[in-house]
Parts: sequence; structure tokens; C-alpha cells
Amino acid sequence: MSYIIGIDLGGTKIATILSDMQGNIIKRVEEATNAHEGQDAVIERIKETVYKVLDPGKDIVGIGIGSPGPLDLENGVVLKTPNLKWDNVPIRDILEEEFGITTYLENDANAAAAGEYRFGAGKGARNLIYITVSTGIGSGIIIEGKVYRGAHGIAGELGHTIIDPNGPICGCGQHGCLEAFASGTGLARRAILELQLGVESIIRELVEGDLQKVTARTLEDAALKGDEFARNMWESTGDYLGIGMTNVINFLDPEMIIIGGGVSKAGELLFEPMRRSIKKRAIESAASKVKIVPAALGKDVGTLGAISVVIEALEAK
Amino acid sequence: MSYIIGIDLGGTKIATILSDMQGNIIKRVEEATNAHEGQDAVIERIKETVYKVLDPGKDIVGIGIGSPGPLDLENGVVLKTPNLKWDNVPIRDILEEEFGITTYLENDANAAAAGEYRFGAGKGARNLIYITVSTGIGSGIIIEGKVYRGAHGIAGELGHTIIDPNGPICGCGQHGCLEAFASGTGLARRAILELQLGVESIIRELVEGDLQKVTARTLEDAALKGDEFARNMWESTGDYLGIGMTNVINFLDPEMIIIGGGVSKAGELLFEPMRRSIKKRAIESAASKVKIVPAALGKDVGTLGAISVVIEALEAK
Repeated sequence: MSYIIGIDLGGTKIATILSDMQGNIIKRVEEATNAHEGQDAVIERIKETVYKVLDPGKDIVGIGIGSPGPLDLENGVVLKTPNLKWDNVPIRDILEEEFGITTYLENDANAAAAGEYRFGAGKGARNLIYITVSTGIGSGIIIEGKVYRGAHGIAGELGHTIIDPNGPICGCGQHGCLEAFASGTGLARRAILELQLGVESIIRELVEGDLQKVTARTLEDAALKGDEFARNMWESTGDYLGIGMTNVINFLDPEMIIIGGGVSKAGELLFEPMRRSIKKRAIESAASKVKIVPAALGKDVGTLGAISVVIEALEAK
Repeated sequence: MSYIIGIDLGGTKIATILSDMQGNIIKRVEEATNAHEGQDAVIERIKETVYKVLDPGKDIVGIGIGSPGPLDLENGVVLKTPNLKWDNVPIRDILEEEFGITTYLENDANAAAAGEYRFGAGKGARNLIYITVSTGIGSGIIIEGKVYRGAHGIAGELGHTIIDPNGPICGCGQHGCLEAFASGTGLARRAILELQLGVESIIRELVEGDLQKVTARTLEDAALKGDEFARNMWESTGDYLGIGMTNVINFLDPEMIIIGGGVSKAGELLFEPMRRSIKKRAIESAASKVKIVPAALGKDVGTLGAISVVIEALEAK
């Protein structure tokens, strides 16, 4: 029997699993990333997690690692990554040298898409988009059952598609990216701006007057307490997300769209206005048929995604 | 030797060719569509053009027909098509019955993409987008050398991706579709609005005071005569087109984008601000590498596209 190691490298934690080819998790370890300790310390920590799940008695056919981008996929290098403070780390070669096992690097959103396609909400849907709504917004594209990376490994940067060129400035420097409107950060920033202008809301009490503490989570709490301003903010966030998804539907006409990421846990607060926006805006013959579903793999999406990347690579051989 | 018949069915003309498998055109006929005469008359006219290129001595392995949408690709039916005033015409079966030759229906933008990929500007680029900027804006997507139709045959409706939800109303009923800003119709409408508000321009003289006569062509003439308003209108049109293309680049990261359609003949008036917009807005590592080129097949793009659709279908067998 063959086994695979999957690593989910994130800005806050490193999760590593040993799994069989069916995605059954045999062992699982998790460590804080502690990126501030520098890249060498983090690389050592990744190796340690692999040693912890490594079983010398088992035939391990590959290691997969999902990482925040930008990446050089061809050469297996993590480029300048703000989340990790890494600078050109050839992580694929480092792990292959250490363990003597073929290693595959993939960006986290693509890996998550591969994981949901193979083991999660997307089973059987050969053309799907996985969208993660979190601090930022990313996406992974599955076409004909395989990760679509684009010609230069950039595909899936849905967060930086522009839905209003006069919109708020985004972390990337552009105006009106989907991410600037509908990510957790975008939502919080838009809310803070309104609160600074004096809009009425219980949010001020929730953050004890310190508006810089407002997050998507604060807005969720306030909305669930019936705060009208917070409800309106979720309404607009769902509407904007719906515009981004309308563009995906009209341009790529996928069979399924899977929504994951921390902000998506707000559930119907986000999903209800999002669905309304799509129904209002997208081409009916595609919009009425596309399945829009929440992600199914939860905290394992990153590691099972990395496992799926390895399986896909082995199948292609 | 094998031959194929390709039909380009448009709102103003029907062009039909006989070609070999390498896209060499053996015979070519063209007729006015005269859609006002009703669908039966147009169907008869299509058959006549096929009879004119048909050579009984040759082994004809397929007929391809490119048509404006919406289409039911699976069943080979042209649905309610405003350009043709057709209503559920099973054109594939009609032609197969008449000629006893396997027939393939494809939407015109997909066919054009297939044609440019196989015989035109896109030779060798296995992931490309063909964008037609004309009365409307459409696109065809080639992924891994094949037409990507999406899960419900809708893929490629780039003209109806939203680039500003507060933008002008589009023919489809939505606000701020790319088509409402950057198609020939969108450009003319935006210009007429400004002219009605009293902006200074030689356009009034060019249309002898009748603003409803303003078209993209009028704006081209005026711009080439140095009219500042007309130049600014092309500037904004290129900028908007660049936003739509930025979204394509950031989301799908194609190897090449091919621009065709009547409005694209304005050349640098459109291309220069479009390139500037992309350079300013799109993710640099993809935008700096994507090849953006004009279409190469000219008036034969529709017929050679239909030929390409047949070849692709035969190759898949």
C-alpha cells in the first residue's frame, strides 16, 4: 500500500499529515509557524513535522506542500511571501534532499481546490472553482478534473479581479479589487470608515471604542445581535462577492463553486445576499444550474489538498 | 483527401467555404442573411450556399456552423437569437438531413477562437482567449488546445462580466457590463450622452447634427482628425477594455489574448490605452508575459473557425 505526506504551510500554523491514497488520515501534527523566527527556523519546523508523521515501514510515494504565494511552481520555489516573510526558498529541493521523496509544491488555493475536488464538496464535478474568503480572497480552478495553473502559474487570482475601478484601494495597490470589498480585511476596512463617519452601531461597544479592533468576526457578532449597520455591511459584502462570482459564472460557466475560508463561516449572513446578487446579475441559464456549496474539508483542506496535488501528479505519469 | 464545409452564420451575411484539413479554402460563397425574411428563408439560403461549395467528387467529412447565441450545443439548436430572429431552430439536424454529412454547431466566438488557434494568430498557444470587440463583446476560451464551453455551454460571456456595478445599463439589463462600456455600441452610447450634454466636438458636423447616427466608426474618424473628445472616448474605451482583460489575466493567466472584431480595427486608438490599462492594473508576472495580438484571419475567421470546430471534433474521436 502507498502513502503520501501532505503539508499545509500557513502564516500562523504548519499542519502535516500522513494519508493513504484515499485521503484517510493516519497521522496528523500541527505546529505554530512562528514566522518571526525567520525562514531557517520555519524550514526546520516543517522538517520536524514531516519526521513526526514519517513511518519508515510504509511506502511513501510523495510529499505535497501547499504554500501561500507567489511561487515559482516550475522550480518549486517560494518567492517573496509576505505571510511567511520568506525570500526565494527552494522548499521542494530542500524537502527532497532531506527525505529522498519526490516533493510537489502548489499554491494553497490550488491545493485546496484539488482537495475539495478529490475528497470534499466537489467530488465528481470536473469543472469547478474553489473560492476562499478569508483575510484575502483567493481561488483555485479545476478544469477537466485537474488543477488549472495558467500559463505562468498565476491563475486563480480572483481576489484581484476588478469589480469597480473607482472602488477602495486594495493591498495590491489597485482600486476596486474584489478582495478590497469582500474579504475579511475589506469588510472590516469598509466598516471602520463608516463608523469613523459616525454611523450608529453597537460595534463601538463590542470593541470598547477602539475601531482598529473591528474585524469580520466583530461584524458577525454585531449582526447576530441584530445590529442594522452590521447587517447592511454583510449585505453589501455578499453583494460584492456575488459580483465577483457572477463574473466567474458568465466567463467560465463552472459546474460548481465551492466557498471556503474563515469569513465564509458567517454562513447565511454572507451567503444569502451573495445568492441574491448572483440571481440578479448572472446569465440565468448558467446561474440557475451552477451548484454553489460550502467547503467540506474544514481544517484539513490544506493538508488533504497537498495530498491531492501529489495524487494528481502521480496519475499524470 | 478529406474536406470540410464551414458556415459562418451572421446577422448580416452567411459565408460558406469548402476547405481541406489544413484550412486551405477551395471555394467560398457569401450571401446577405436578410433575416427579416424569416427563419425558413434563411435556412433555405444556408442550404443554397452549401450546395454551391459542395463538390460531389470530394470526400466531405463534416459540416461546421458558427452561429450567434444562445445555442443548445448538445442538441445543435439555435435558441431565441435576437440577431437572426430565430426561435429554436434545430439547424444541426436540418443540415444533417439535407446533406447526410455529420454537422457541428458552435457559437461564433468559440468558433473564432478555435479558428485563430488552429490557423491564425494563436498557432501553438495551447491556452488562449479570443476576444471580439464589435457591436457587442464576446470571447472564446481555448484550454489545452480545445474549446472550453463550460458546464452549460455559456463560457466566454466576457462582455457580460461586470466591471462597475454603478456603470451604464447594458443590453442584457445589467449595469456596468464590460460590453456597456467598451463595445462599439457602448462606446457610441457613452459618446452620445456626453454630446447631448454639450461637449465640444467635430462629431456633430460628421453626423450632420443627428447624434443617433454616431457609431464607433464616427468616433474613429473624428479621433483621426484630431478631435480631443473623440480621442478621450477611445482612451476610456481602451481603459475599460483593459479592466476586462486584467480580470481575464488575473483569473485565467492565459498564454495569449487575441483581439478581433470590427471595433478592434481602430488599432492603436484602442490598443494603446488598453495596453496601458493592463500594465497599470494586472498582476505583473502574468501581464508582462501574456502575448496580446490582433486576430489574423480577418473575414475568414468565422468560416475557418467552423472548419476548426469540425477538425477538433474529429480529433477527439
